[in-house]
Amino acid sequence: MERPRHQGMAKNTYMRWRLPLVCLLWEVAMIVLFGVFVRFDAEADAHWEEEKQEKNLTSDIENDFYFRYPSFQDVHVMIFVGFGFLMTFLKRYGFGAVGFNFLLAAFGIQWALLMQGWFHSFKGGKILIGVENLINADFCVGSVCIAFGAILGKTSPIQLLVMTLFQVTLFSVNEYILLNLLHVKDAGGSMTIHTFGAYFGLVVTRILYRPNLEQSKDKQGSVYHSDLFAMIGTLYLWMYWPSFNSAISEHGDAQHRAAINTYCSLAACVLTTMAFSSMLQKKGKLDMVHIQNATLAGGVAVGTSAEMMLTPYGSLIVGFICGIVSTVGYVYLTPFLESRLHIQDTCGIHNLHAMPGLIGGIVGAITAAAATEDVYGKEGLIKAFDFTGTYQTRTPSVQGGFQAAGIVVSLLMALAGGALVGAILKLPLWGDPAAENCFEDDIYWEVPEDEESDAYHMHNPDKASSP
Amino acid sequence: MERPRHQGMAKNTYMRWRLPLVCLLWEVAMIVLFGVFVRFDAEADAHWEEEKQEKNLTSDIENDFYFRYPSFQDVHVMIFVGFGFLMTFLKRYGFGAVGFNFLLAAFGIQWALLMQGWFHSFKGGKILIGVENLINADFCVGSVCIAFGAILGKTSPIQLLVMTLFQVTLFSVNEYILLNLLHVKDAGGSMTIHTFGAYFGLVVTRILYRPNLEQSKDKQGSVYHSDLFAMIGTLYLWMYWPSFNSAISEHGDAQHRAAINTYCSLAACVLTTMAFSSMLQKKGKLDMVHIQNATLAGGVAVGTSAEMMLTPYGSLIVGFICGIVSTVGYVYLTPFLESRLHIQDTCGIHNLHAMPGLIGGIVGAITAAAATEDVYGKEGLIKAFDFTGTYQTRTPSVQGGFQAAGIVVSLLMALAGGALVGAILKLPLWGDPAAENCFEDDIYWEVPEDEESDAYHMHNPDKASSP
Amino acid sequence: MERPRHQGMAKNTYMRWRLPLVCLLWEVAMIVLFGVFVRFDAEADAHWEEEKQEKNLTSDIENDFYFRYPSFQDVHVMIFVGFGFLMTFLKRYGFGAVGFNFLLAAFGIQWALLMQGWFHSFKGGKILIGVENLINADFCVGSVCIAFGAILGKTSPIQLLVMTLFQVTLFSVNEYILLNLLHVKDAGGSMTIHTFGAYFGLVVTRILYRPNLEQSKDKQGSVYHSDLFAMIGTLYLWMYWPSFNSAISEHGDAQHRAAINTYCSLAACVLTTMAFSSMLQKKGKLDMVHIQNATLAGGVAVGTSAEMMLTPYGSLIVGFICGIVSTVGYVYLTPFLESRLHIQDTCGIHNLHAMPGLIGGIVGAITAAAATEDVYGKEGLIKAFDFTGTYQTRTPSVQGGFQAAGIVVSLLMALAGGALVGAILKLPLWGDPAAENCFEDDIYWEVPEDEESDAYHMHNPDKASSP
Repeated sequence: MERPRHQGMAKNTYMRWRLPLVCLLWEVAMIVLFGVFVRFDAEADAHWEEEKQEKNLTSDIENDFYFRYPSFQDVHVMIFVGFGFLMTFLKRYGFGAVGFNFLLAAFGIQWALLMQGWFHSFKGGKILIGVENLINADFCVGSVCIAFGAILGKTSPIQLLVMTLFQVTLFSVNEYILLNLLHVKDAGGSMTIHTFGAYFGLVVTRILYRPNLEQSKDKQGSVYHSDLFAMIGTLYLWMYWPSFNSAISEHGDAQHRAAINTYCSLAACVLTTMAFSSMLQKKGKLDMVHIQNATLAGGVAVGTSAEMMLTPYGSLIVGFICGIVSTVGYVYLTPFLESRLHIQDTCGIHNLHAMPGLIGGIVGAITAAAATEDVYGKEGLIKAFDFTGTYQTRTPSVQGGFQAAGIVVSLLMALAGGALVGAILKLPLWGDPAAENCFEDDIYWEVPEDEESDAYHMHNPDKASSP
Repeated sequence: MERPRHQGMAKNTYMRWRLPLVCLLWEVAMIVLFGVFVRFDAEADAHWEEEKQEKNLTSDIENDFYFRYPSFQDVHVMIFVGFGFLMTFLKRYGFGAVGFNFLLAAFGIQWALLMQGWFHSFKGGKILIGVENLINADFCVGSVCIAFGAILGKTSPIQLLVMTLFQVTLFSVNEYILLNLLHVKDAGGSMTIHTFGAYFGLVVTRILYRPNLEQSKDKQGSVYHSDLFAMIGTLYLWMYWPSFNSAISEHGDAQHRAAINTYCSLAACVLTTMAFSSMLQKKGKLDMVHIQNATLAGGVAVGTSAEMMLTPYGSLIVGFICGIVSTVGYVYLTPFLESRLHIQDTCGIHNLHAMPGLIGGIVGAITAAAATEDVYGKEGLIKAFDFTGTYQTRTPSVQGGFQAAGIVVSLLMALAGGALVGAILKLPLWGDPAAENCFEDDIYWEVPEDEESDAYHMHNPDKASSP
Repeated sequence: MERPRHQGMAKNTYMRWRLPLVCLLWEVAMIVLFGVFVRFDAEADAHWEEEKQEKNLTSDIENDFYFRYPSFQDVHVMIFVGFGFLMTFLKRYGFGAVGFNFLLAAFGIQWALLMQGWFHSFKGGKILIGVENLINADFCVGSVCIAFGAILGKTSPIQLLVMTLFQVTLFSVNEYILLNLLHVKDAGGSMTIHTFGAYFGLVVTRILYRPNLEQSKDKQGSVYHSDLFAMIGTLYLWMYWPSFNSAISEHGDAQHRAAINTYCSLAACVLTTMAFSSMLQKKGKLDMVHIQNATLAGGVAVGTSAEMMLTPYGSLIVGFICGIVSTVGYVYLTPFLESRLHIQDTCGIHNLHAMPGLIGGIVGAITAAAATEDVYGKEGLIKAFDFTGTYQTRTPSVQGGFQAAGIVVSLLMALAGGALVGAILKLPLWGDPAAENCFEDDIYWEVPEDEESDAYHMHNPDKASSP
């Protein structure tokens, strides 16, 4: 076949030494840092037998493992299969979607264990980890997966690793400010994960703006089966989101409540997404892009408030609104952002994570401010917002104010951090693809031949018939 | 391309105003009804701290959430990924299979929370929900997913929503009659979910009979990769069925036992399905349709009895028989039903749910009738069949009789309900596709272009080579 | 179409009577044996109410079901979806990969319940089963799935069933020797599952050596979407491996620790796999074969030691090494084994299971030998290695020696067993395919026509354009 492929490949995308070097050196660094710092926490350590006696625990079932491990595994699936497959919708970028997501998340969880560990689990010079740390590491990486969605198909694996390094670091700082300094509640991460991750990614993609991206326009769409692969990602995100929002809530009613609220919000979101997907299209047909993404906005938007007494109908309202906002965003805002603001947002994370994340922060602030002893019970209120110690005298309305402050902090951190990291990624060191090679696995992956020739036939029916 | 597509499209399948209107209005109704009625139950409410003290519970692990949440998530996966992907086997209806299943289930779980709530969790004017309600809502929707299998590819999304509204309502009534009035045991829903759902769907599809359906015959088959997508659905249903049948059983041994029995039954079912799939085909080759469906019949058929002392070998026998019955059904009964009784059953739910559901009801009745204090222990027998209060004096053999009555009631409710709903769906209001457009995503979905031209090439190799 | 397919089909692959006969007779045998031997254990039996009182258990949550069921379901997914889909990478063997894996595993778990039951759960003439037995049965079948990987595409379903029958038997004997006679720890099965399963399969495929296999060389590769299907398998294996290695560990800290260690090892493994995949390819591109397989080696290699105090950084080191060993194996060893030693290893199980399994055994032996009271605590050390009863006086260093002996025994059992079973499978009774029909679903499966003609076009673009 004489097809002149990648004729304009001006850029050097050769990964052979750069990628291995980064992977190996960074992994060695992880080993050294883990060696110095990371140990098991009391419930995962072999001394647990003695610990049990000290704490007067009568049964192994009291180990935090049994409270959180099922949710952890659901979250784990969301990060690797959920985000990974959601992004396989592109016709020729399935390997990159699922494979690079795998790479950055595998690195990210290690770095997150360290970063979050230093901030939250540092005792006696050691980071003590248990299942809750694993969940938090997955959460932190979730925010990177979100940002990845904005730049999907336009970056090299090295850029993704660099972004992960910085974003995990900044995530942890932001999380520390919110959870520890502002004493904000955000168990499902509307602010820390979604708002932060999405605006971070949007700024990065803005800085990496590619004026000639229309050269790979034909590869920015999906094919029939790639849309079905993406639905695997969508459904696992959708189904397990109740686990996501409840995974690190307090034991007992809080976890229980968070799951129910999220379940309700997501259900409502599906209906308004379908409604607006059909309504906003001239022929009234449903658009897979909306179904794959906007149906999830309801989970994002109760991330802060799910563990509070949002109530099932409150959750339905939030889901109702977010399905609309998100779908409308896909139809009107994404093209506007691209043409006017030069924000090329491959997966539309602005619609799925940024706006619903902000809504989630606001809903959380309102729900917190509206909390009363009547609704929560005296002890319930203290437990729900951890009004103990230094925060013993904080009232719900003050809490609402701090929650609102948390949104602003997350947003600012994301914008500043994204600008910094975007600038770093713009350096001509990382082997990113030329505009005409975006959204194409062939640059970084060995792609099986058969299907390529098949794809070739698809795109060039004329030539196929007269070779 | 001059291909005259959908030339006979006499019917108006334009969804632009009808679908959004239904989705939005119904979702608003859900919000209002949830606002009036739905609250958290004691274990999900912030007052749980006080509740714990009242009930003398020493640990949060006693919250029902920890007993049932892992099973809930498995059931959730079965409804959305299991049923959704099982139906993607059709070559050009993958979006409809997984997307409409998503839509109807998302609406259905909300309506089911209300309907089942009024019957079972109504206290002081409020429906109090917890994780068990979520499981039951998923179960209820499962019966709609089953009925969807019969009419797959032949209905509009609005018809599916209308069917969901009515079927969930009737399901709840039937369930109330069985569980509360007849005091029947049916934790895995052989009667309430499978028998009811399947016969309901079969009557609906009978009433919606399309004499010219052979016009879309070429689209009723699968392609290689669509069969693999369907296997994702099959395997998740198969693997998680032990969770399905044990999800709402009593804590402790009943949940444990239900999982083991189901595991055994399903294993046996795979072997007889494979055996008969090969035996009934002239060339002795295995048929994906059987593997995708009949392997699951063993799970359906122990739905009632799995939590009883069916024993592992009893389960193997049930699975053994159902693999045969179901496979034989696909080979001989489905064509017969279509040609003689005008029942066009796209997924063969008669073989996977109707017959095994009936068998399951019968096995349950026999197992109940055969229960003895020797096998269950004195307390065990009382606990297993809830022979307390009004039912204190009921004996196992009487229980067996009531179980049998439950089958008959479910069957009659399904036939009557299916007839009613079928008649409603026949009204020329809902935008169903013309016969030549059945099994075709293009009617209701934006379908990516590339692959369509690819599919076009596949079906018309001659034209492809001389355009 | 005049394409002369399977022209050289000298072998009789007609399954119509042989496969059904084997399936039905063996299933009947299972029923009889289950009827004679298998009953519920105390925690799944209806007498549990009384059992609870005897054991002074205050809550149903103490039932082993709640400690192990979530892990069981994860393991179950690994066996059926994980292994099944991992093997769908071949362009025309997806049905066989997922379907035959389904068949052999469904039979294998039944036979394993019996075999393992006689060795480990035999009380008063009965095998008493609970959730832990289900996990162990899945584990045992896992070793068969591994061996299946070596002979994938080259055997008939009957051969696979025969292999399963023998391999499960030998697995159980080997497991008994290791766990009971040598008192070895191997909760994640580096030795019993991976080393045994892999070397067993390698010997079988050596004995079944096909000199003319290059006749089906064109079908040994993948296509774009088959590689994505395989990634579903990869990711589920990767994500749920922490559950695999912790599923049957002691309650409490051991399960907790095993999950954390495995999580860490797998994360490191991804980075070194990516590094070496890129480094060992001239163009520096990543190879899907490595990503699909070598990323999992880290889970295999902590199978023995994960529940010990391996520590997170120890796990990182193991994962680091195994990603390299496994990837290098795919690039250099697999071609060598095929050309020089005539070992045709379809999935490269030597790289994913054999070498990492051996490493896992060695790491386990070292970790055990290095155990101290300081690290484990006095009670912790006794509990971790079960130094009670007969083994009360065993020291960690002696334990290390026994662990090492366990590796040797597993290896020898695998080699001898594989030779025996390979010889049996070589008998001309089982309907295996001719060399030119290997890696082709069409021999044993009804394959939908459309896609075949599509595949036909792909391979023969010339003919497609001038029919």
